[in-house]
Amino acid sequence: MADILVFGAHPDDAEFGMGASMVKFARSGASIAVCVLTRGEAGTFGTAEQREAEMRAAAEKLGGELEILSYRDCQIFDTYEARIRLAEVVRKFRPRIIFAPYHTNHSYHKDGAAHPDHAATGTIVRSAARYARFSGLKDAAGEPWNAEHILYYMVPRTRKPTLLNDVTPFMGEWESIARCHTSQMSLRDGKVLEGLRRFREAYGNLLGVGYAEGFIVEEPLVFDLSLFMSSSSQPGGVAHRPAGTA
Amino acid sequence: MADILVFGAHPDDAEFGMGASMVKFARSGASIAVCVLTRGEAGTFGTAEQREAEMRAAAEKLGGELEILSYRDCQIFDTYEARIRLAEVVRKFRPRIIFAPYHTNHSYHKDGAAHPDHAATGTIVRSAARYARFSGLKDAAGEPWNAEHILYYMVPRTRKPTLLNDVTPFMGEWESIARCHTSQMSLRDGKVLEGLRRFREAYGNLLGVGYAEGFIVEEPLVFDLSLFMSSSSQPGGVAHRPAGTA
Amino acid sequence: MADILVFGAHPDDAEFGMGASMVKFARSGASIAVCVLTRGEAGTFGTAEQREAEMRAAAEKLGGELEILSYRDCQIFDTYEARIRLAEVVRKFRPRIIFAPYHTNHSYHKDGAAHPDHAATGTIVRSAARYARFSGLKDAAGEPWNAEHILYYMVPRTRKPTLLNDVTPFMGEWESIARCHTSQMSLRDGKVLEGLRRFREAYGNLLGVGYAEGFIVEEPLVFDLSLFMSSSSQPGGVAHRPAGTA
Amino acid sequence: MADILVFGAHPDDAEFGMGASMVKFARSGASIAVCVLTRGEAGTFGTAEQREAEMRAAAEKLGGELEILSYRDCQIFDTYEARIRLAEVVRKFRPRIIFAPYHTNHSYHKDGAAHPDHAATGTIVRSAARYARFSGLKDAAGEPWNAEHILYYMVPRTRKPTLLNDVTPFMGEWESIARCHTSQMSLRDGKVLEGLRRFREAYGNLLGVGYAEGFIVEEPLVFDLSLFMSSSSQPGGVAHRPAGTA
Amino acid sequence: MADILVFGAHPDDAEFGMGASMVKFARSGASIAVCVLTRGEAGTFGTAEQREAEMRAAAEKLGGELEILSYRDCQIFDTYEARIRLAEVVRKFRPRIIFAPYHTNHSYHKDGAAHPDHAATGTIVRSAARYARFSGLKDAAGEPWNAEHILYYMVPRTRKPTLLNDVTPFMGEWESIARCHTSQMSLRDGKVLEGLRRFREAYGNLLGVGYAEGFIVEEPLVFDLSLFMSSSSQPGGVAHRPAGTA
Amino acid sequence: MADILVFGAHPDDAEFGMGASMVKFARSGASIAVCVLTRGEAGTFGTAEQREAEMRAAAEKLGGELEILSYRDCQIFDTYEARIRLAEVVRKFRPRIIFAPYHTNHSYHKDGAAHPDHAATGTIVRSAARYARFSGLKDAAGEPWNAEHILYYMVPRTRKPTLLNDVTPFMGEWESIARCHTSQMSLRDGKVLEGLRRFREAYGNLLGVGYAEGFIVEEPLVFDLSLFMSSSSQPGGVAHRPAGTA
Repeated sequence: MADILVFGAHPDDAEFGMGASMVKFARSGASIAVCVLTRGEAGTFGTAEQREAEMRAAAEKLGGELEILSYRDCQIFDTYEARIRLAEVVRKFRPRIIFAPYHTNHSYHKDGAAHPDHAATGTIVRSAARYARFSGLKDAAGEPWNAEHILYYMVPRTRKPTLLNDVTPFMGEWESIARCHTSQMSLRDGKVLEGLRRFREAYGNLLGVGYAEGFIVEEPLVFDLSLFMSSSSQPGGVAHRPAGTA
Repeated sequence: MADILVFGAHPDDAEFGMGASMVKFARSGASIAVCVLTRGEAGTFGTAEQREAEMRAAAEKLGGELEILSYRDCQIFDTYEARIRLAEVVRKFRPRIIFAPYHTNHSYHKDGAAHPDHAATGTIVRSAARYARFSGLKDAAGEPWNAEHILYYMVPRTRKPTLLNDVTPFMGEWESIARCHTSQMSLRDGKVLEGLRRFREAYGNLLGVGYAEGFIVEEPLVFDLSLFMSSSSQPGGVAHRPAGTA
Repeated sequence: MADILVFGAHPDDAEFGMGASMVKFARSGASIAVCVLTRGEAGTFGTAEQREAEMRAAAEKLGGELEILSYRDCQIFDTYEARIRLAEVVRKFRPRIIFAPYHTNHSYHKDGAAHPDHAATGTIVRSAARYARFSGLKDAAGEPWNAEHILYYMVPRTRKPTLLNDVTPFMGEWESIARCHTSQMSLRDGKVLEGLRRFREAYGNLLGVGYAEGFIVEEPLVFDLSLFMSSSSQPGGVAHRPAGTA
Repeated sequence: MADILVFGAHPDDAEFGMGASMVKFARSGASIAVCVLTRGEAGTFGTAEQREAEMRAAAEKLGGELEILSYRDCQIFDTYEARIRLAEVVRKFRPRIIFAPYHTNHSYHKDGAAHPDHAATGTIVRSAARYARFSGLKDAAGEPWNAEHILYYMVPRTRKPTLLNDVTPFMGEWESIARCHTSQMSLRDGKVLEGLRRFREAYGNLLGVGYAEGFIVEEPLVFDLSLFMSSSSQPGGVAHRPAGTA
Repeated sequence: MADILVFGAHPDDAEFGMGASMVKFARSGASIAVCVLTRGEAGTFGTAEQREAEMRAAAEKLGGELEILSYRDCQIFDTYEARIRLAEVVRKFRPRIIFAPYHTNHSYHKDGAAHPDHAATGTIVRSAARYARFSGLKDAAGEPWNAEHILYYMVPRTRKPTLLNDVTPFMGEWESIARCHTSQMSLRDGKVLEGLRRFREAYGNLLGVGYAEGFIVEEPLVFDLSLFMSSSSQPGGVAHRPAGTA
Repeated sequence: MADILVFGAHPDDAEFGMGASMVKFARSGASIAVCVLTRGEAGTFGTAEQREAEMRAAAEKLGGELEILSYRDCQIFDTYEARIRLAEVVRKFRPRIIFAPYHTNHSYHKDGAAHPDHAATGTIVRSAARYARFSGLKDAAGEPWNAEHILYYMVPRTRKPTLLNDVTPFMGEWESIARCHTSQMSLRDGKVLEGLRRFREAYGNLLGVGYAEGFIVEEPLVFDLSLFMSSSSQPGGVAHRPAGTA
């Protein structure tokens, strides 16, 4: 059982992609499980064994459960078998919210976030969440479970996020967890965390806070007046911000 | 002062377009003001005087304030004067949330919701809300005010709403308020309310409730975990719904 | 041989999705064949045997031919084998018009119409119709056949239909045929037909008639002046319809 | 009275943009009126007087009525006055179908079809057709008239036309009418007609005929089975066409 | 005469929006003119006089010409007069390339870059560049001039830039020029330049360099093989970059 | 080793789709390799043997290398095996630029360019180019290679090309190479080359030259001032081009 179930294709996807939100959720009392489909053995740095140890360390630091599946790095495809396997994970953890990488990304081949494994994972999860609730689908072990929400992280650069999560107070703890993926710290000439921080700054800028993580929700959201009433409407005086400010 | 400020082009736009949400907001304790730009004198039924009386009756029943401007029906255009005038209304009511008809609608000429006055009103409001907070903008009377949120109603048919508001318990009170627009009850061969109800059923269907009203928000929303945690995830068993179900 | 060939993934897709149009076509003298890819055995209600009997009853009532393929529910994927198999069905019936569920639907996981089998069926049909006309494609049995048109039903909520078919006079007969799918009548707490009717009302509303079914055509249509000349242009007098009317 | 009313911004817009369709409509017995908003006096070639004479010659050859308004070339804007003036033209001719240049075109500044007057004309017509039916709109002279259809010509390059009109048999007569705009024949180094012909070839290619003109319709079209049944489905044998064929 | 003509609505738009590119262009020998439509007198900080002095200082530091027009801050609208006035500026400077703020931006009212003056300026420039080449358009003073290219800066957040300009070596000089707008340095709690730098970092990240500025071009670009041949293809070894990296 | 590597699904895809650009590249000194996935044996005309001979003749005439893979016509799917196989081709030729058919095309089933093999090839190449640079990906033979650019040909009709390549001087040589595909000359009633020429005329028209080929690039391009400075800005005098000109 977990309130929140986060799927990732590679060992660092969840922590690098939405790790500060995971910290924030955990610190607010939510239980979290992370399901990683591969051991990332096709990466430049780190063996399957090292990377498994790293993700275990990260999950422990977060305080979440970890489920590692046996897919091969660079070989994630949307098949019936994969939909069933992931539906079983959904049925096992019975989450309220499922997170997955966004299911569609046509970005150019140099964009790291557009790895085909990422989009494939999002595509499978979308069907697996549906299959998990079908009582007539006997191929999937476990009791049917209807998770109400799917939220997507790894927002493509050409999409505006639906939701921005202010993670400013959790950036320190996030960095400590992200550093568990020791083998990956040499990526981008050792500046991998700097890049990830800059990325959260840009979303924070959109929200008017220090750091934020972005998500796409494709379901219409339920209107909750309090979301808007508690906000920071206030006497004006702010001139139009300078042109070109992100 | 009002928590919520709803702009409409014609006397019935607010009540017909998002009236049940207005009832719901009011019943939850929010103060509401409605600002109507014209007296709807170019409509088929009702004189300017009748329609003014009708909107006053509706506002009274709702328990909201009413501000009637002096624009002419079918003559709403995005001008500097209009932006300033509406900014003054914003500065007067100092709302947390502003509602306006959606600012863009290319729908075909037979679609009632695509009246050019509607889109023009949304376009003006978008700039007026910005201008209202500029302390350097002396042409607009009143103290600068920075309303944090603009939400749009009158969602075009080709757009998916961002937010759906469950208004099922408020449909009775809504109908009673909508009926204040007596002169308009002959529209669509007397079936105007039936059409409006059917419209809310369709959005309710999307949300899994009886009746809902839809809104578009163009700002990324602030992530609030409780929105998703309080939801209805549950044991499954629901087969795939029949094809073609709305 | 059939003038019209309708593909569906599950036993009720064709009747629930565009059944009233099928009645209308049949009553105007067109011959119709329905090809169903699975027996819907993963649904909550009904066994494969029951559902096969139900679709046979529906086809008989409609007066159409029925071809049942051997794909498994929830396991429809776009493969070469499937393209060839469906091309053979096209070659067998030699239709003028092919109907299929729309091939792309990213809607959220709770939307029944967005079952992955539906989009997969549309995707396969799009290639199968092309393959059916290749005389060099020996893997597919039958004589090459070039069906001129593909029309899609199960229009995603975020798409505007290209064509609306007025089915008002055929709703009674449609309901009688839809009820042949007895095992599915418990869906949505027994309100499945009510939902399907409401869905047709919403499209009818767009067209100004009681009930309509919507279709997407991706080919540019041939201009036929009579389509527009026989229409209901008339003296005006209709005021702008109320805001928010669907 | 006219079955068909075509609006153009400049003297040659209607003939150059959809002239072969106008010939086809006229030869099938429809009555046609053309309303031109300006005399094209800001063009490189031809004075206002010459161009007026040219459009009169073209209208006579076509056998249609001609209404010339007094807007200035390069100065067409969407104003209340213009909406009312064009609504009066609609009320005068009481057409079944209205044609106008497409209302939105962000194409780059070198694209001739993207002249701001063209999009402005389409924008005004969209509102004018609506205003023409409002009986409460006393500013517009004439009896209210509800024209059922608006079709757009001058399809932007980035849009797929909704309808293609086979005009192959009418290209000769079209050219003869287009040549009435004598002053414009020096455009594009004298190759203006060649460009217009090539343009119709490209659309013809899409339809599988010699020459076609394209149109956008934004209203869902009424389904008419005969449109699809009379088509050219036939034994196959056509291999996949070569890649890159338009 | 100027190779490059940059239009801005407010005194700091050009420098804040694409200033580092202007430095780069100037340092490569191109002549630059900046045309500013208003004195920014509705801003929170700085009077019209101060801001005029600031933009003169910035232009001098850049080494470009400066043309200040007499439009009022917050009052820029697409009118015939404005198209003509800007066409005259085009005819005066006879540029090869025109830069303007992007012409369409529906972003929410809190996004500084989405000031209605910005989009209005882009819209006017698009028509003005066209009008400048019409020899028949006598209302605009000056000899007709056909500027081949319009490029847009102030790329909306929801659009991917077409072109990214590496400005890393010019950031120091850019900052020195941007600081000429002294009165605006208090914006965003004094962090205005930091925000603008972060913005360029994000685009630099896309390009794999330190800092970049983004542009939209709506004309298809001319293919130049050397653009691609001189690039950095090289032996691989770079693993997939971490998920979530911008 | 090759500067440029062009992937095609069928023997004639490269020559028919972007052959004149290949000639232009070759004549400017670039080395070119063409990799064809199938022998086109499912086409109406020509056996696998004939078509192989034809593509060899075309490659020889062009002066490029040719790599023929063993996929089956109509059976190209995005699999791990295919990604690896194509990555090996990338590693073998170590190109600076990769060309592939555009990866997404929902066009209707009668559009030759929308053959599912074409989009599948583009999809595979997009991943293969990425996989080719992963040093951790041992399944692919050869040394890792990071090709900097992917450009797409076979632009769908509903997309605007990013780049247009003026191929006017190379049309003669192109036709001579295209004619090497002798078996395909009977396509479209023998008018296949005429169709391909017309297609290039339409793009040429966009660029203001005789003939052009279009490409899509999904990566933001590097800004190069000289691209725009060498252009044809000039004294005006060109009136607005006639409406409807392509």
